[in-house]
Amino acid sequence: MAAARDEVPNKRVVLKRYVTGFPSEDDMEVVTATARLTVPPGSTAMVVKNLYVSCDPYMRGRMTKHERPSYVPDFVLGEALVNFGVSRVIASGHPDFKVGDLVWGMTGWEEYTLVPKPESFFKINHPELPLSYYTGVLGMPGLTAWAGFFDVSKPKKGDYVFVSAASGAVGQLVGQLAKLTGCYVVGSAGSDEKVNLLKTKFGFDEAFNYKKEQDLDAALRRCFPEGIDIYFENVGGPTLEAVLSNMRNHGRIPACGMISQYNLEQPEGVRNLFHIVAKRLRMEGFMVFDYFSEYYKFEEEMAGSYVEDIAEGLERAPAALIGLYSGRNVGKQLVAVARE
Amino acid sequence: MAAARDEVPNKRVVLKRYVTGFPSEDDMEVVTATARLTVPPGSTAMVVKNLYVSCDPYMRGRMTKHERPSYVPDFVLGEALVNFGVSRVIASGHPDFKVGDLVWGMTGWEEYTLVPKPESFFKINHPELPLSYYTGVLGMPGLTAWAGFFDVSKPKKGDYVFVSAASGAVGQLVGQLAKLTGCYVVGSAGSDEKVNLLKTKFGFDEAFNYKKEQDLDAALRRCFPEGIDIYFENVGGPTLEAVLSNMRNHGRIPACGMISQYNLEQPEGVRNLFHIVAKRLRMEGFMVFDYFSEYYKFEEEMAGSYVEDIAEGLERAPAALIGLYSGRNVGKQLVAVARE
Repeated sequence: MAAARDEVPNKRVVLKRYVTGFPSEDDMEVVTATARLTVPPGSTAMVVKNLYVSCDPYMRGRMTKHERPSYVPDFVLGEALVNFGVSRVIASGHPDFKVGDLVWGMTGWEEYTLVPKPESFFKINHPELPLSYYTGVLGMPGLTAWAGFFDVSKPKKGDYVFVSAASGAVGQLVGQLAKLTGCYVVGSAGSDEKVNLLKTKFGFDEAFNYKKEQDLDAALRRCFPEGIDIYFENVGGPTLEAVLSNMRNHGRIPACGMISQYNLEQPEGVRNLFHIVAKRLRMEGFMVFDYFSEYYKFEEEMAGSYVEDIAEGLERAPAALIGLYSGRNVGKQLVAVARE
Repeated sequence: MAAARDEVPNKRVVLKRYVTGFPSEDDMEVVTATARLTVPPGSTAMVVKNLYVSCDPYMRGRMTKHERPSYVPDFVLGEALVNFGVSRVIASGHPDFKVGDLVWGMTGWEEYTLVPKPESFFKINHPELPLSYYTGVLGMPGLTAWAGFFDVSKPKKGDYVFVSAASGAVGQLVGQLAKLTGCYVVGSAGSDEKVNLLKTKFGFDEAFNYKKEQDLDAALRRCFPEGIDIYFENVGGPTLEAVLSNMRNHGRIPACGMISQYNLEQPEGVRNLFHIVAKRLRMEGFMVFDYFSEYYKFEEEMAGSYVEDIAEGLERAPAALIGLYSGRNVGKQLVAVARE
């Protein structure tokens, strides 16, 4: 019975059914399985204890059953959800990862995860900072903001920058990077509380609550009488349409996400793409995966304030994830799995 | 009465009313005004005799009355339409342009045009070629194809290239440039005659008649089982939507025009722009104006076969222009104003 001696209960959040339309907490379930806390002899795998797992909008796509393969794999029914998290190594057969190491990478929504390929994880070089930052400002959203803003949009001092979903994990960082670059920055968000945060805490020059604007086009004209040079695209749909009408010649649209469309059975059409031709706009999608080789350089460069919304415990993970799509979170949403 | 001695009748095509929806020949009118064949003393203007004027899809936008200024000025009611043409200088106060010079540039749909700023015109350095080529392969459409394909889409040998409106002025050249670059090239067009031309004359690897395809997405999957690297966008709308589903990761979409949308009172929406994010696509508009400084370099580089559709005489100009929007033209459409 030696094999059972290293088995422990392993609470996990599993997907119960594939989702169409708006997801609900009930599409997920918290169950208890078991985990082994050792790696098989000769394996280069590692076992990690998860400390924080991140709630990110792109996860909605993984809750759909795709006919053609998507850019990230669909979740597997009955298995733990998978996303970026912060973990401590508790067993390792990999020469680069030792027991006790703090790491971040693609892990399970569960207490313990067996990681077959530890080399996909990053070491945490600043454990003196709040570890949860490695799901945000120093993790995937941070690298996303940094790559999208600097590498894709090629900002110049004085550029007029608009950020949608501006108080979220990525948006709040884009705004601050833009201010550091000498840009004029306006953000949109879905509540007065978030708008207030943009102006008082994140240093946006202007901000508005898009849910209170009768006419998005007019709101943008009010904020950008000279037009927009850079639109950091997080939402898609009607906001993108209003932005296209207000872009300046040679404007750039780094396309990071389109959260307004993820839960629609029939996405909304954007009817004024001809502005891309007439104004010589560049709209360019990007993925954080393509910038992982620059992570440690980024980690050293990055600093700044950051707002988090931490849910305590895996039991609250489904609600935290669903909250993203109604905008309930204020700042970067994540889940504390274990407080060490 | 000396002033009248250099006045001659000047036949011209004028816009009678601003257009909504599909334009008709009756929106234009051929009238006879007068022109002076001299320039005022001390002026640096020139007078040109127009030989060919070009019919280009973008002209539809200039037939609309815009509330906000468009990227090119609206036509002026009662004045001659304005577009690129080939002309001979018959009077000049400009040191760089002499009587007898052959030039091309933005001129009037009329027999004689007073050009206040001759420096916006290009000299024709190869008068041994058919002069009409300077409205096509050696003119604006040629420079457009060259700039959009090489500078915007950054092609590599082996890339899979799709061109819409492929037998038109720009498309036929893009296809040939792509073949010269070692790409696999498929074109779409709106008649079997055009499709045949693409395969037999322009060297496209494959071509299809989009009007005969029940399902554009399926047609593209058939032609591009591995997906599309470069889509040279001339049409917009449902074709763009079908293409986005078939793009490969890191694909590029130089956006040259969207002719399918120009005559719609309410443009069609494109619903699957999320592919831009997921596949890290770059969609980038461009304008030939931005490449005029490279024209003479381009003129020397360019060669190849080219199909034209020449209407004889200004009387046939309105029908030639309208024909663009129903696809009646085969190849580059232009109007011969005067055969010297």
